[in-house]
Amino acid sequence: MYKAPVEEIAFTLKHVAGMERAMEEGILGDLGTDLVDAILSEAGRFAGEAVEPLAENGDKQGARLVDGKVVLPDGWEKLYRDWIAGGWNGLTAPEEFGGQDLPHMLNIATLEMWNSASMAFGLAPTLTMGAVEALRAHGSEDLRKTYLAKLVSGEWTGTMNLTEPHAGSDVGALRSRAERRDDGTYRIFGQKIFITWGDHEATENIIHLVLARLPDAPAGTRGISLFLVPKFLVNEDGSLGARNDLFVHSLEHKLGIHGSPTCTMIYGDGKYGAEKGAVGWLVGEENKGLACMFTMMNNARLAVGIQGVAIAEAATQKAIAYARERTQGRAPGTTSSGMSPIIEHPDVARMLLTMKTLTQGARAICYACAQAIDMSHRDPERARYWQERAALLTPIAKSFSTDAGVDVASLGIQVHGGMGFIEETGAARLLRDARIAPIYEGTNGIQAIDLVTRKLTIANGDHMRGFIGELREIADSVAKSNLDGFGETAPRLQAAIADLEKTSEWLLSKQAEGAVAEALAGATPYQRLFGLVLTGSYLAKGGLADAGDGEGARRIALCRFVAENLLAETAALSDRVIAGASSLEAARAALESDDFRSIRPKI
Amino acid sequence: MYKAPVEEIAFTLKHVAGMERAMEEGILGDLGTDLVDAILSEAGRFAGEAVEPLAENGDKQGARLVDGKVVLPDGWEKLYRDWIAGGWNGLTAPEEFGGQDLPHMLNIATLEMWNSASMAFGLAPTLTMGAVEALRAHGSEDLRKTYLAKLVSGEWTGTMNLTEPHAGSDVGALRSRAERRDDGTYRIFGQKIFITWGDHEATENIIHLVLARLPDAPAGTRGISLFLVPKFLVNEDGSLGARNDLFVHSLEHKLGIHGSPTCTMIYGDGKYGAEKGAVGWLVGEENKGLACMFTMMNNARLAVGIQGVAIAEAATQKAIAYARERTQGRAPGTTSSGMSPIIEHPDVARMLLTMKTLTQGARAICYACAQAIDMSHRDPERARYWQERAALLTPIAKSFSTDAGVDVASLGIQVHGGMGFIEETGAARLLRDARIAPIYEGTNGIQAIDLVTRKLTIANGDHMRGFIGELREIADSVAKSNLDGFGETAPRLQAAIADLEKTSEWLLSKQAEGAVAEALAGATPYQRLFGLVLTGSYLAKGGLADAGDGEGARRIALCRFVAENLLAETAALSDRVIAGASSLEAARAALESDDFRSIRPKI
Repeated sequence: MYKAPVEEIAFTLKHVAGMERAMEEGILGDLGTDLVDAILSEAGRFAGEAVEPLAENGDKQGARLVDGKVVLPDGWEKLYRDWIAGGWNGLTAPEEFGGQDLPHMLNIATLEMWNSASMAFGLAPTLTMGAVEALRAHGSEDLRKTYLAKLVSGEWTGTMNLTEPHAGSDVGALRSRAERRDDGTYRIFGQKIFITWGDHEATENIIHLVLARLPDAPAGTRGISLFLVPKFLVNEDGSLGARNDLFVHSLEHKLGIHGSPTCTMIYGDGKYGAEKGAVGWLVGEENKGLACMFTMMNNARLAVGIQGVAIAEAATQKAIAYARERTQGRAPGTTSSGMSPIIEHPDVARMLLTMKTLTQGARAICYACAQAIDMSHRDPERARYWQERAALLTPIAKSFSTDAGVDVASLGIQVHGGMGFIEETGAARLLRDARIAPIYEGTNGIQAIDLVTRKLTIANGDHMRGFIGELREIADSVAKSNLDGFGETAPRLQAAIADLEKTSEWLLSKQAEGAVAEALAGATPYQRLFGLVLTGSYLAKGGLADAGDGEGARRIALCRFVAENLLAETAALSDRVIAGASSLEAARAALESDDFRSIRPKI
Repeated sequence: MYKAPVEEIAFTLKHVAGMERAMEEGILGDLGTDLVDAILSEAGRFAGEAVEPLAENGDKQGARLVDGKVVLPDGWEKLYRDWIAGGWNGLTAPEEFGGQDLPHMLNIATLEMWNSASMAFGLAPTLTMGAVEALRAHGSEDLRKTYLAKLVSGEWTGTMNLTEPHAGSDVGALRSRAERRDDGTYRIFGQKIFITWGDHEATENIIHLVLARLPDAPAGTRGISLFLVPKFLVNEDGSLGARNDLFVHSLEHKLGIHGSPTCTMIYGDGKYGAEKGAVGWLVGEENKGLACMFTMMNNARLAVGIQGVAIAEAATQKAIAYARERTQGRAPGTTSSGMSPIIEHPDVARMLLTMKTLTQGARAICYACAQAIDMSHRDPERARYWQERAALLTPIAKSFSTDAGVDVASLGIQVHGGMGFIEETGAARLLRDARIAPIYEGTNGIQAIDLVTRKLTIANGDHMRGFIGELREIADSVAKSNLDGFGETAPRLQAAIADLEKTSEWLLSKQAEGAVAEALAGATPYQRLFGLVLTGSYLAKGGLADAGDGEGARRIALCRFVAENLLAETAALSDRVIAGASSLEAARAALESDDFRSIRPKI
């Protein structure tokens, strides 16, 4: 029942994220409105008509391990082949390797649609695209020649192998080993867990990117190297050779994304081949693997952020449709006889409006981040500005959107009442799927640390200050617009931006003093504060762009709802950052010492 | 791994909910500290050692319908029999029918433990206790004589049959029929859905309480009658007779509480017996069924609230234990070498402290509500005051606690990182189980409407005003205590109480003006505001009661964390109620009209 919101997506790309202006300035080459609309429409059609119908069974059946092989849900292998036949996998890849060299913005917009239709399915290309990025940036010419075209087309999929049982957020703790061979190849040994789409039969080959340590590598993150390890070795002529020494040991039983095989992978156990060890090729330089992996991870973080948007969109559509049809009770002020559609009850309307505006806000943030990435490559004069902007927005895009995905999916269940708890309704699946997104690709807590310690501090905070200035211009434009529909938007947005500014300066000054623990205690509320301010600002930008007629009035009304409801929280979040840290420190003893239950209360 | 927090529970009962004072004043009869402690300890032992070990498999296997019979998870039938053998089912029931006539507070405290160990299991007695309440208050002497003793012992279980496909929150829309027979019995016909523990083989009989309409009943809620409909008819001598004409048609596939059979029940289909129609007996008067059902529902609402506390407690324990063991990265300021336990990272500590304080706050609210119910029966001089207090606290106890259950369980997953998404860890199950509690027994939106329109308005708001005065006394005592550990608790709690007062008066005045829709638009944020203020107040009360030594200092530090972090939200919530309604109204057009996707954006 998901219907891709193609025109809302197009509007947000063009008028909020800045695609229209970039097209006008010629920064996006030949790309024009008609092509953008055609791509989005066609993606929307495929997502709604081909992917979504297979989502429910994908969840129910899940990916299974049968006789050592991963069996995808019924129909998914063909679905994947149809999907790559549409050329969707190579949208942003270089033309040299068969891609279409389109802006990343368009890729993120179409990823939103695949993930709305089925997040478990959307994960396969997400990982492959990450592998393409890493190889493109760091792979030798040989590796690129051998692997890139097939990865770009999607004929082969890619994976990302970081996590080990004792090395998750702390990737520096990983223990997988790599040994040098005289022919310039390596042999890889070790166990990797949580490997998304780590194995399956939908493609003939799977290209694993694996982090491992050389024998003489320094400890920690500075001793990690990245290797390309194919499932099947590739002959000179491009045909497939012997099976490499790696296999899927088991699949995880997860809360959601059941259709996506989450694999434990074993490398170099001697299961395949005469000599123990999976054959690997170095990507980038020895001991510089983490930097290569970050190439994948930054884009992957945005791609996970868009999963949050995707789930939020699907949940909102489902809840609105249900609330329009389901009748219960009589809404206050209703003039019709009989029961009212529950959408007319103010409390249900509040939930739906919260869902809709969080979705729009998260979408705008993700698209703006994608725009910054595009511009950093395509607008050489301002490359540094756009690189900084992309770096700053990435943790917000990842965290705010995935939190929104969980919150909106949970509200979606609530709107459905008892039916929301029944799996057949599909609302529960959205929450189950959504719940991983705040965790993987760096937990949202890690994103918050990144935001506060590495992004806010860019150029000693000057990039952030400039950004705040841009947001102020939006708020001022709202004030100058004199449009009644905005209500109190201008003063409330201005106040929220002031909260963001004050809190940013406090965090900068604390870090300058060396009070890192104090700054980190407020990282998560700061991240949310930032996301809320961007939601208000971007919805205002959209409202201004669209002012005047029917849909403009509705867009402005949604912006006003954000300003007069959601933005009320920014003062509290700022307070929590600035005044909350010392009480957090004081209360930690209650966690670190024995719990109350072991203490005799005074009776 | 759940360990009942027996001493924390005892402390909250005695020093926060007021049990100690009630015992001192002799209001609770012979009940003394030793008996309370013994009951709580024994319940904690049974919950941790007998119930919890069967919870995981209960979720995995679930209740199944096999050849028309409900098969419970392995071991659950014996578990249930062991549980009733302990006398737990009749804790608060009258001695006349084999109960122990203990305060409801103790029952709620033990219900917390059963539900922490397994919410799916805890549901069975929850429903039976509701049936006992309804029969005790409204059943004829004959019905009480025939059914109460077996329901009090738990030898038979009880159910509550309200919901039909078109009648959920709007129970007045139900269509099940009842026909009078000359012998004074009735015949019941209809379909009921979402019937918790509607059928199973753990007991010989099941007593259904069913809402249905007589042929000449007025429309809506004033035409509903309540009937007792046993699975097996009961002979004069108490032995079981013929199978009654009702059966379980199917079980729901739910997000959580898999061990609890959620049944679609069919009454009067002619499957059993010569004559079509399930034999039923009237409970209370004809067409007054809803009032009888409310007797069950009020207690059931508190019992659902305690499920939220129970899940929150279990999730908090699990997350703290994991965060103490799991090491990743180096916490700021750590002096030890190697990776730090993640509990030392400030962001993780923030999550855990939020979990712990929300749990303590929700627990205190539920126990205070139970105390008010007890006192309304046992303190005749102040019966009205306590009735009003119980009425006021019930919607908060239900909604705030169940929202906390979901939020805390979701944070619990987050603390576990990737492991939280893996079902074997158990953190995901807690979220799946928790998610129903904000929905059933009246959605939290319905609770908010009840709070604003029927509870806040008691005695024209004077009861609420008196309550606010009591809360102020707590804040003033904190100020007078001069205990440094409280930090800014006193001024922040005072400010939060002022937010509550201001918002309450605004809601009262809006309703006095007839602006009901405007008041209802803010019902949910008001409900949360109220719950947060109570959390701060009750944690302060506990801190004051326990001041001076080690555990007191920790208790006070937790209170301070609430005041300086969570209470920052009350101003925003107040603002959302008072200033948010008109923007909500303005934005509704964006939901009610066609969606953006059908509108051509300006390009």
